[in-house]
Amino acid sequence: MPDALLPGSTIGIMGGGQLGRMLALAASQLGLKAHIYADDANAPAFDVAAVRTLGDYGDLAAVEAFAASVDVVTCEFENVAAGALEAASRAAPVYPPPLAFAIAQDRLTEKTFLSELGIRVAPFAAVSDAGNLKDALDQVKLPALLKTRRFGYDGKGQALVKTEAEASKALAELQGTPALIEGLIAFSRELSVLVVRGQGGSTQFYDTVENVHQNGILAASRVPARISASVAFEARTIAGQVADALHHVGVLAVEMFHREGAEPSLLVNEIAPRVHNSGHWTLDACLISQFENHVRAIAGWPLGETSRHSDALMTNLIGAEMERWRALAGEEGTALHLYGKAEARPGRKMGHVTRLYPKS
Amino acid sequence: MPDALLPGSTIGIMGGGQLGRMLALAASQLGLKAHIYADDANAPAFDVAAVRTLGDYGDLAAVEAFAASVDVVTCEFENVAAGALEAASRAAPVYPPPLAFAIAQDRLTEKTFLSELGIRVAPFAAVSDAGNLKDALDQVKLPALLKTRRFGYDGKGQALVKTEAEASKALAELQGTPALIEGLIAFSRELSVLVVRGQGGSTQFYDTVENVHQNGILAASRVPARISASVAFEARTIAGQVADALHHVGVLAVEMFHREGAEPSLLVNEIAPRVHNSGHWTLDACLISQFENHVRAIAGWPLGETSRHSDALMTNLIGAEMERWRALAGEEGTALHLYGKAEARPGRKMGHVTRLYPKS
Repeated sequence: MPDALLPGSTIGIMGGGQLGRMLALAASQLGLKAHIYADDANAPAFDVAAVRTLGDYGDLAAVEAFAASVDVVTCEFENVAAGALEAASRAAPVYPPPLAFAIAQDRLTEKTFLSELGIRVAPFAAVSDAGNLKDALDQVKLPALLKTRRFGYDGKGQALVKTEAEASKALAELQGTPALIEGLIAFSRELSVLVVRGQGGSTQFYDTVENVHQNGILAASRVPARISASVAFEARTIAGQVADALHHVGVLAVEMFHREGAEPSLLVNEIAPRVHNSGHWTLDACLISQFENHVRAIAGWPLGETSRHSDALMTNLIGAEMERWRALAGEEGTALHLYGKAEARPGRKMGHVTRLYPKS
Repeated sequence: MPDALLPGSTIGIMGGGQLGRMLALAASQLGLKAHIYADDANAPAFDVAAVRTLGDYGDLAAVEAFAASVDVVTCEFENVAAGALEAASRAAPVYPPPLAFAIAQDRLTEKTFLSELGIRVAPFAAVSDAGNLKDALDQVKLPALLKTRRFGYDGKGQALVKTEAEASKALAELQGTPALIEGLIAFSRELSVLVVRGQGGSTQFYDTVENVHQNGILAASRVPARISASVAFEARTIAGQVADALHHVGVLAVEMFHREGAEPSLLVNEIAPRVHNSGHWTLDACLISQFENHVRAIAGWPLGETSRHSDALMTNLIGAEMERWRALAGEEGTALHLYGKAEARPGRKMGHVTRLYPKS
């Protein structure tokens, strides 16, 4: 076991959104201080941070100075530039490891990495221009999804294409942005596994989650997922394999498609080297949440248990849905979480609710 | 129902200790900001506050300016001077109401208030000087506790006296500080009831807690208390009666002695118009903690439910006990809470652990 950070140490968090906010709250519960580095003066995480730095992620001197002022650095989002991680690494340990970010940031690298581990993914092929589109479509078959390699989340940076003409048009619109094309998977349900891996390599798993997306954004997560014990075991095995291969430290989310009756029944869709929206239910249904376990892992503390005392349904409050806060606050068996964001723009995650049910 | 504060509003908290810290964390979860007013630059609550004011509680202009900058004011400790509450009231609503503080601050006023409600307390009598000590002892009987009327907590400001000579000596040592003498109660166990009362007068109760004190400081709380349903009902009824009589808003803790087989079996020992150490288990064993319910009440939000999903044993980490943090962090079924205090002085509450058990 590595040396654990002592209580009173400071966790540096790059990113000031709701994930950074909930990480800061979890750190506080353990007697740790949170230092938030964010590029938005209204970052919700600033409101709960012991120390705040407003800076650009591309300002490498500022990032390094931030890292020098804390005991460990982590990130709440995966699209942090490699240069920023490198700058931070010069001054403090960075967890999860930069490798996990490098792989999760690029859909082509990610799928290649997974395939090389023997993990099944949707058929995919790189496309760079009209010249190799036909070859790619031969490998992948239509209908398919044309996706940018980088900066995709919440359904951004992807288009459904049903014909070769649609594919050509969508590719042209990318104006040379590196892309890949992926076969569209017919699935029974979407799952995610949240695994936390400690600095010594031990892993703990939360129960597999079943997710519902709307317009490319997570709408709801339920646990337990409606899957058999053998599928749950397989899902967990895959997530553990990915975490080990990345030498991950912290929480890792592995999203999968479950195809009931097909072989293989699980295909990995994507990974996120961080706490994840599909793990928000752990705040209310588990003694130790994903946020606390991420903090424990990066601080070198013993991991906390991941068992749940209740079944749970987590629903995001997106944009104007947050206006229902008062009714939701009064609803029995329901925990309301609001992120302190001033402006409820369409598509913006403003909060979530978790409804608990007796454990099935 | 009063108008509820909107998400994004600011809760002003006087006091920067662990109770203020945990109130601030609860406010954050609801999308509210916390502004902490404290007189110690190292106040643990400052680390999780959106806004911080370092000031003396006796600086009434500063207190009023603080109140003017927030949407509601509350206190994490009961010994706040009436003048400070009055100054705050000029600029913002103050909850709990100043009446609750006035009564809880003075042991003689408190016992008189309870008696006038028909609630049973230990025999008590005011003592001011040697002249009326004999009369007081005639009413109260020895052995007894000589207590200062004000500024008592964690066993401070009280002395056990077994003889008239000891009583005279202890009284002389008080050098004229207003005091009272209380009959020593032989009890089976100590209980506390945490009640939360909303602005509209509705109340919710957490399950009655059984407490163990050591050296006058709370050592451990367990829930459920080992009492019959009828005693639990009586305890709850008393707490509700006190909360209503105070027109309380927020959490109120009512501490009682339970004398098994005696009549009356419950005597109220003291009340605290705030979140209370004996309610810390609610963070882990309930969906909505005492801290969140206090915030909901003072913000005019619907109260959250108070049911528990687990049995719980909460143990304080006092002074050097905090050194066991690493072993405790790795203990199964245990949630560790550290308060971010730099110095582990003897008698200082540094954190607590809650162990959960299946609900009995």
